[in-house]
Amino acid sequence: METPDLRTLWPSPAHDRVEIIDQTRLPQVRSTLWLATAADAAQAIRAMQVRGAPLIGATAAYGLALGLRADPSAAGLATAHELLLAARPTAVNLRWALDRVRQRVTPLAAPERAAAAWAEAEAIAAEDVALNRALGEHGLRVIERLAAERRQPLQILTHCNAGALATLGWGTATAPIYLAHAAGIPLHVWVSETRPRLQGAKLTAWELGALGVAHTLIVDAAGAALMRQGRVDLVLVGADRVTRNGDVCNKIGTYEKALAARDNDVPMYAAVPSPTIDWTLASGADVPIEERDAGEVLHPGGGESIAPAGTRVVNPAFDTTPGRLLTGLITERGICAASSAGLSGLFPEFARG
Amino acid sequence: METPDLRTLWPSPAHDRVEIIDQTRLPQVRSTLWLATAADAAQAIRAMQVRGAPLIGATAAYGLALGLRADPSAAGLATAHELLLAARPTAVNLRWALDRVRQRVTPLAAPERAAAAWAEAEAIAAEDVALNRALGEHGLRVIERLAAERRQPLQILTHCNAGALATLGWGTATAPIYLAHAAGIPLHVWVSETRPRLQGAKLTAWELGALGVAHTLIVDAAGAALMRQGRVDLVLVGADRVTRNGDVCNKIGTYEKALAARDNDVPMYAAVPSPTIDWTLASGADVPIEERDAGEVLHPGGGESIAPAGTRVVNPAFDTTPGRLLTGLITERGICAASSAGLSGLFPEFARG
Repeated sequence: METPDLRTLWPSPAHDRVEIIDQTRLPQVRSTLWLATAADAAQAIRAMQVRGAPLIGATAAYGLALGLRADPSAAGLATAHELLLAARPTAVNLRWALDRVRQRVTPLAAPERAAAAWAEAEAIAAEDVALNRALGEHGLRVIERLAAERRQPLQILTHCNAGALATLGWGTATAPIYLAHAAGIPLHVWVSETRPRLQGAKLTAWELGALGVAHTLIVDAAGAALMRQGRVDLVLVGADRVTRNGDVCNKIGTYEKALAARDNDVPMYAAVPSPTIDWTLASGADVPIEERDAGEVLHPGGGESIAPAGTRVVNPAFDTTPGRLLTGLITERGICAASSAGLSGLFPEFARG
Repeated sequence: METPDLRTLWPSPAHDRVEIIDQTRLPQVRSTLWLATAADAAQAIRAMQVRGAPLIGATAAYGLALGLRADPSAAGLATAHELLLAARPTAVNLRWALDRVRQRVTPLAAPERAAAAWAEAEAIAAEDVALNRALGEHGLRVIERLAAERRQPLQILTHCNAGALATLGWGTATAPIYLAHAAGIPLHVWVSETRPRLQGAKLTAWELGALGVAHTLIVDAAGAALMRQGRVDLVLVGADRVTRNGDVCNKIGTYEKALAARDNDVPMYAAVPSPTIDWTLASGADVPIEERDAGEVLHPGGGESIAPAGTRVVNPAFDTTPGRLLTGLITERGICAASSAGLSGLFPEFARG
């Protein structure tokens, strides 16, 4: 089976820089940038030239290695760690990756630190690819079964970008799609534009196009209508955070997709690599919902304001989908019900804690 | 009780022209245009300077009167009727209003036709205002009850523009809101932006602002999330067409609002003046769904394309909400269940047919 050639980050053989796709210029232009310092990496994260939790984490890890290359002292480590952590203060993966690299290099002598940090960044990146690939194989079984039962091309709906561009490879919700496409299963993807930031239109449509997967763009509200018209066989989304009872916190609009899927008997799964599961939270009610800037809503596509001057805006970035509405969660260990019982069956070692 | 001063069409005392708000320039600029001929009226309808079924119908009726003022012959009547009908071929109210005026004037001698047509146009306009006002009084009872039971300000969510701008006055979904506001009931309206054409952001936010009703703009997908967070007490929407079993065909996105309202026990009503009820259709499954141009999706707010060049788009303009999801329909005769029994109880003379 062929691997889709859609990488998002290329470390240099000399370990002195990493190349990234500047995602802020998609979909109009695909251009890349070289990051040679911790400050370069912090700036790329801050400016959202890289985005998506796994990709942010890996970029930060490489950034810390680059910082240690310039100054491997304890002070240099602290400075680079702080600089990178401040780039997107609320991103959980960012802190996790930085702390992991710091923990690895702190006991080492200064001259050994840069190489060890680089190796740890490579491990973080490789693990992300492996998790997504494993998750994708389980999701592929779902697609194979539905394609046999329902119709071909199978009609899959996705929301936001839980794609290769958000990760080091394969993506999460897209991993089963790319594996099925590579296996020759005919499929077509409905891409929900994902207001306000339009990640579906800008990123998912771009990467599906780059990889030759047939797709069609719709406004977010059309997803439910297409399901009601019988034009969707499967809904696949990602997850920003899953609580231990199987509730899924994901991009705003996921919840209403789940309501429509349930009302029309369309199977819907969230793709959940295990680092996304927050075992400390009992349910989705415990997840704080970030409210973002009004400008994202008022200026879609960068044009003039869509609303009268002075219009008040509320812009919640995420919503929470109760596990009861989902057919299941697709993880690297297999598929389970979106419930405490389902998750603890697959991950007994965490569930016990 | 004070009437909100938001008119959309002003006939001249001399019966020689009508003034309209150029709705294509909202929300940036409120400017008006004079229509002095049938061709002017046809152009205003074609360019969507007037929109909303009732307003299109009334504008066409005045346009036909203006045409007869210039040429009251049978040929002049036929020419003006044809010109206006072609302006928006799929608008049901357009044909209805034009046929009503033609039927009124055809038996008359040519010199009497223009005045009779003008009077008929005035009757069409006055009837729309009266229907909406009556409907609004019934809706006001719902708001009064909820404001007493739940909280003040009452949190009302609406979608698209079923407002004064779509009608000759009051609007449909907005009529209860304006009456409640005039009665001093504290309320706040969540305005769903309504992709792709953004009528919520552009028109509803503008008219609520013009009339001093507190409101906040959200992306369409946020409506469900706000309901789940307990931040919505009532959902009020309009209807493009209601079938005799109570299914509601309305702007894309209405269906998912109804799913979310049901899942969160939020009451939801469609405002339905009786001309909107299509007694010839048994259910929503019989309503053809218009699919519109890709450009509406690709260029929100008039900016550059949000998606890669060549991206395929499907753009359904409406969806159908099954009556089972709605709390009820608000009509000029009262409120009923969104069902065959509910509608035939209020409108026995039509239901029998």
